[in-house]
Amino acid sequence: MPASEREKMAAGEWYCCLDDALDRLRRQARRAVHAHNTMPPDERGAMAPVLRALFAQAARDVFIEAPFHCSYGINILLGERVYFNAGCAILDSGRVTIGDRSMFGPGVQIYCAEHHKDAALRSRGIEIARPVTIGKDVWIGGGAIILGGVTIGDGAIVGAGAVVTKDVPAGATVVGNPARIR
Amino acid sequence: MPASEREKMAAGEWYCCLDDALDRLRRQARRAVHAHNTMPPDERGAMAPVLRALFAQAARDVFIEAPFHCSYGINILLGERVYFNAGCAILDSGRVTIGDRSMFGPGVQIYCAEHHKDAALRSRGIEIARPVTIGKDVWIGGGAIILGGVTIGDGAIVGAGAVVTKDVPAGATVVGNPARIR
Amino acid sequence: MPASEREKMAAGEWYCCLDDALDRLRRQARRAVHAHNTMPPDERGAMAPVLRALFAQAARDVFIEAPFHCSYGINILLGERVYFNAGCAILDSGRVTIGDRSMFGPGVQIYCAEHHKDAALRSRGIEIARPVTIGKDVWIGGGAIILGGVTIGDGAIVGAGAVVTKDVPAGATVVGNPARIR
Repeated sequence: MPASEREKMAAGEWYCCLDDALDRLRRQARRAVHAHNTMPPDERGAMAPVLRALFAQAARDVFIEAPFHCSYGINILLGERVYFNAGCAILDSGRVTIGDRSMFGPGVQIYCAEHHKDAALRSRGIEIARPVTIGKDVWIGGGAIILGGVTIGDGAIVGAGAVVTKDVPAGATVVGNPARIR
Repeated sequence: MPASEREKMAAGEWYCCLDDALDRLRRQARRAVHAHNTMPPDERGAMAPVLRALFAQAARDVFIEAPFHCSYGINILLGERVYFNAGCAILDSGRVTIGDRSMFGPGVQIYCAEHHKDAALRSRGIEIARPVTIGKDVWIGGGAIILGGVTIGDGAIVGAGAVVTKDVPAGATVVGNPARIR
Repeated sequence: MPASEREKMAAGEWYCCLDDALDRLRRQARRAVHAHNTMPPDERGAMAPVLRALFAQAARDVFIEAPFHCSYGINILLGERVYFNAGCAILDSGRVTIGDRSMFGPGVQIYCAEHHKDAALRSRGIEIARPVTIGKDVWIGGGAIILGGVTIGDGAIVGAGAVVTKDVPAGATVVGNPARIR
């Protein structure tokens, strides 16, 4: 039996996002995101239970400010005391792994999804997913954008508004668009 | 009879945004945007009906993730299968025309509105609106900003976080702040 | 008696954000922000009353589009006719002072909070707050980011998507990441 679009997505192969099974997963994520974002904050606490249930893994003390957005949720793994400030968005068609105590400023974006560069294939929904791996004790400044395929080492710092297109070594500080080591 | 502020805005002339008729249009847009953004996703579907009704034109299969923002809505024309991911914002004081199958990542911003550079005139609400025209099969990466007056050709790609201040030829890829052809 | 974390934050000294008193203030801000962002726009008007009550100071005719985000609110002072378009966020651990008639495009970010660059201290919640001062008649373009410690002079213009890391003289125009005088 040929691989499903979901299996191809998970395997890092080109797949078609115009697919019923993937659409069902995206609907599920929309419901969880909506619940998280509309719940009164005292009731929501650190995270709406339905959002926690969606993630592949989220340590007990993860805190996610509203609003938050993710496309699937099921590919996100969050270590202890991970913190997302308001307005962060994760397109987790690929696996997104975030280490303990890493902190995200407001409006940080993580984009695993990459459409095909050929317009004809792109219009047919062909895309590929690349994982993002962020180590422990990383500080991602507000408004930064992390592209698919990027790994950020332990203790690194990403400046506010940086666009990270390449790996960041442990302990390094990167700034700018595209991000470069400072 | 002298032109109304709305007529001057539509004609690409300097106008005053502190105007009752324009204010009524902005209130109308706020209501539609609020309805779209607060509606449960299974009920909202591809787009809240009140948001669809606001646009100058929107093909049947346009999809707009929540949250979305626009200032007037009445100047937006969307072709077939146009897709906006979460958090996009369009300041459509000028006409915003988007071709079939063009896709917008999360948090893309389109700004037709330009305040006057003279602080005294600016403080009196003087601004100008420049149209934005985006072709077919364009991919605008997440967090990109498109300024007023810009035309983006068919099949072009705008990198995540790019700030587009000039026209982009058909088929070109632009990245950076300001955006340059790669 | 040693200074409280709140006093150290206000004094511009290193403090620990993992503190009950600061946490209570952040909860208070979350409630006000949630009320502002979920209230029907005709009811909300220029600003939700609970958000107005939170701010240190807000002139009668300040207008804040939803959604808006702030971390404390109590350190924000807004002059006459200040206008924030949709999606702005202010991390006001430091004092944020904004002069009369200054206008903010959509998604503008002001970040007073700075985590410690030493990962071990950062993981213990050690951070510092630097004030942001914006003069009168300033125009901050959409998606711009203003970092802590920055002062922007009267009548200045900050381009869309600029990342402002240094002071901007009165009347100057800055663009880019990092922002430079044009």
